[in-house]
Amino acid sequence: MISLNIGNMVSEVIGRAGLTEKEIEGLKEKALLAHGEVAKGLAFMDLTEQDTSGVKKIAEEIRAKAEGFILLGIGGSALGPKSILEAMSPMHNLKNSPKVFVYDNVDPSTLKNILSLVDLRKTAVNVITKSGSTGETMASFMALYEGGPAALIVATTDPEKGALRKLVGEKGFRSLPIPSPLGGRYSVLSPVGLLLAGVIGVDPDELLRGARAMKERCSNPELWENPAYLFGALLYLMDKLKGRRITVMMPYSDRLKVLGEWFCQLWAESLGKSGVGLTPYPSLGTTDQHSQVQLWMEGPEDKVVVFVRVLDHGADIKIPEVFKETETGYLGGHSLGELMNAEEESTELCLAKAGRPNMTLEAPAVNAFYMGQLFYFFELATAFTGFLYGINPFDQPAVEEGKRFTYGMMGRPGFEAKRLEVQEARLKKACWRV
Amino acid sequence: MISLNIGNMVSEVIGRAGLTEKEIEGLKEKALLAHGEVAKGLAFMDLTEQDTSGVKKIAEEIRAKAEGFILLGIGGSALGPKSILEAMSPMHNLKNSPKVFVYDNVDPSTLKNILSLVDLRKTAVNVITKSGSTGETMASFMALYEGGPAALIVATTDPEKGALRKLVGEKGFRSLPIPSPLGGRYSVLSPVGLLLAGVIGVDPDELLRGARAMKERCSNPELWENPAYLFGALLYLMDKLKGRRITVMMPYSDRLKVLGEWFCQLWAESLGKSGVGLTPYPSLGTTDQHSQVQLWMEGPEDKVVVFVRVLDHGADIKIPEVFKETETGYLGGHSLGELMNAEEESTELCLAKAGRPNMTLEAPAVNAFYMGQLFYFFELATAFTGFLYGINPFDQPAVEEGKRFTYGMMGRPGFEAKRLEVQEARLKKACWRV
Repeated sequence: MISLNIGNMVSEVIGRAGLTEKEIEGLKEKALLAHGEVAKGLAFMDLTEQDTSGVKKIAEEIRAKAEGFILLGIGGSALGPKSILEAMSPMHNLKNSPKVFVYDNVDPSTLKNILSLVDLRKTAVNVITKSGSTGETMASFMALYEGGPAALIVATTDPEKGALRKLVGEKGFRSLPIPSPLGGRYSVLSPVGLLLAGVIGVDPDELLRGARAMKERCSNPELWENPAYLFGALLYLMDKLKGRRITVMMPYSDRLKVLGEWFCQLWAESLGKSGVGLTPYPSLGTTDQHSQVQLWMEGPEDKVVVFVRVLDHGADIKIPEVFKETETGYLGGHSLGELMNAEEESTELCLAKAGRPNMTLEAPAVNAFYMGQLFYFFELATAFTGFLYGINPFDQPAVEEGKRFTYGMMGRPGFEAKRLEVQEARLKKACWRV
Repeated sequence: MISLNIGNMVSEVIGRAGLTEKEIEGLKEKALLAHGEVAKGLAFMDLTEQDTSGVKKIAEEIRAKAEGFILLGIGGSALGPKSILEAMSPMHNLKNSPKVFVYDNVDPSTLKNILSLVDLRKTAVNVITKSGSTGETMASFMALYEGGPAALIVATTDPEKGALRKLVGEKGFRSLPIPSPLGGRYSVLSPVGLLLAGVIGVDPDELLRGARAMKERCSNPELWENPAYLFGALLYLMDKLKGRRITVMMPYSDRLKVLGEWFCQLWAESLGKSGVGLTPYPSLGTTDQHSQVQLWMEGPEDKVVVFVRVLDHGADIKIPEVFKETETGYLGGHSLGELMNAEEESTELCLAKAGRPNMTLEAPAVNAFYMGQLFYFFELATAFTGFLYGINPFDQPAVEEGKRFTYGMMGRPGFEAKRLEVQEARLKKACWRV
């Protein structure tokens, strides 16, 4: 089971910079109210019970027929699947078939590159947009749809509504459902992430089994018995009582780097609204010790660091006893995994000593079961934290305005005024170029 | 030439959230003092004049002999080369030889993967550490050195001092110099980055030609005539006068994603000290519009966004006129590149309208010449900003303590007390696990 250690968040361990038990107890009432919101039932919580036979059938078909698999999606619809790919099959395309590409942007040079590497006629395209109207995703899909007949097209979208669902009916695409009330950033354990899992040979049921275990573990309304709630509660208090508004997410495992990015998307878009919010910050140990730790140790006191520590890296490499006479000779006889985990612990301790709060999630290993646990843990923690702030963790109202300017520039009827506004803004800015 | 537009940073354009001309003028004296520090000469400034024949000779040898190229380095020593790789040869390993791996961590599962993909006897290993005592880098090197005789070993290190330089003498490795006064995070235009450039077929001289052009462009002490100074000055003022301490770096080009991460390392480690500092934040357009823009628009008012806009993406893909009857039918007839740049402009404008300051760097294209310009621009801007804060932008004092704990745990003689300290901390934390 994934566990959470919060020692370096409390005053008993790290002194003045930490939270007192009284401060944590003081949140109880608010926490119970937030739990009340959770207990009404949230869309992502139901995913643990879903029937995966449809996903598995299509995944098998793709594995049998296709040399390439291109996933089109953006935001949560891409980062979820991508985090499964990176964790479960790193360097996938150098070793495995079908080759998998997550195209989550509209950069034409990237798509050109992908198309030079696969034969579209032997490639499955999975287009993911719940609404069916996500501009970037549909633009890419339109380009691929015309570009040549893909071997197989799978549309992952709302089960009933939207333009893409309509196209499924008209064009006969295969399709998978994203339950209507489910937002993109909470969708990794829906067919959004599960199809890619199946395509790379990861059992979708194992991911769900992990999520179920975490659901069970985090069902108690009591903070001290619920690691996901405790996680959110402490970060909320660190903002409110200590002015720490940045949440650094720092896994010590290359395979969890994208999981960290997925968390950041989830945390940022769910919690950043109405003038409040915690800013998530993606990091990677040991690498970013040589990049960010200086700032965390001595920079502004506005951060809390969340470490993710992996006990078994799945492989280890011995550091042989060479170069004995040099400064790093002492490393001989140890292993890279040992060094990695020692550095994680050192960084925790250094921060704690400098009065910089941090906490640690510990995963026994990186596999589908624990990935399922982590996904569920972070989703629940995010929703709960949103309720503590009194905001809706499932909307993203501020993203709409940007779309309207883009519509204007791309000539969508009805948005002519927006186009003019862009042109005016351009003129106003023109003289400020150096 | 790269240009900078600061319209959305000034009150004349965005109103109250912007800086007034008077406020900017008020920094003049301080800026002149900072310029005085720059004018004394900084190590990275001299790199534009270096002789690249040594680098080019070794790069040619590797291209002729090796099927694989493994770069061992961490922090700036890895992110610089990696940003060149991603910008100049995206998806390199799926198309090109030698295959290139930047191993910038001690994750054993990653190294196992790399070793399963190359034959070490046909592989060149480039170990990069100026001091010769970077634990992570030397541990990886020790593992590879014993693991089997690489085809070719190149040590990039101090020209005279340090353990790795000594090994060069003893073992006969090929070597390249990192000038003594140069810090890792300012080293991308030294052999640290130039060797990898040469190995993937990018002309090191072209990178330096770009840097020279930017050096020339940014030689004027006058803020309004020096885009790198203006960049730093405005971000400094946004911190001091408006409490905006987070610098979001958002290129609209997949190929510049790692450049953004390189910038973040440079900015964080150079400026985060003595209780001050700007926190850089890596982002990518359009992707992260679906991840972070919600938070920037409506979350805490603590950020300034820096866009990097690319005029020519090197390739473009037409969006065909299909699905006309759907909501995204209006996209037909445009291109992906056009959509990408329209979204960039929309996001700028949205933020500006919401009183969220931002500025835009514009690059005509992504090539070696403009990469050289960008590297130099950001290095100069970072150093200058450090001088505005009155801190030393070239040290990283807080990183040392963590190393001592790791020494303790790894049994380095003389650090037994640190080992005990770790064990005590472990005990203290043990009961805080949920």
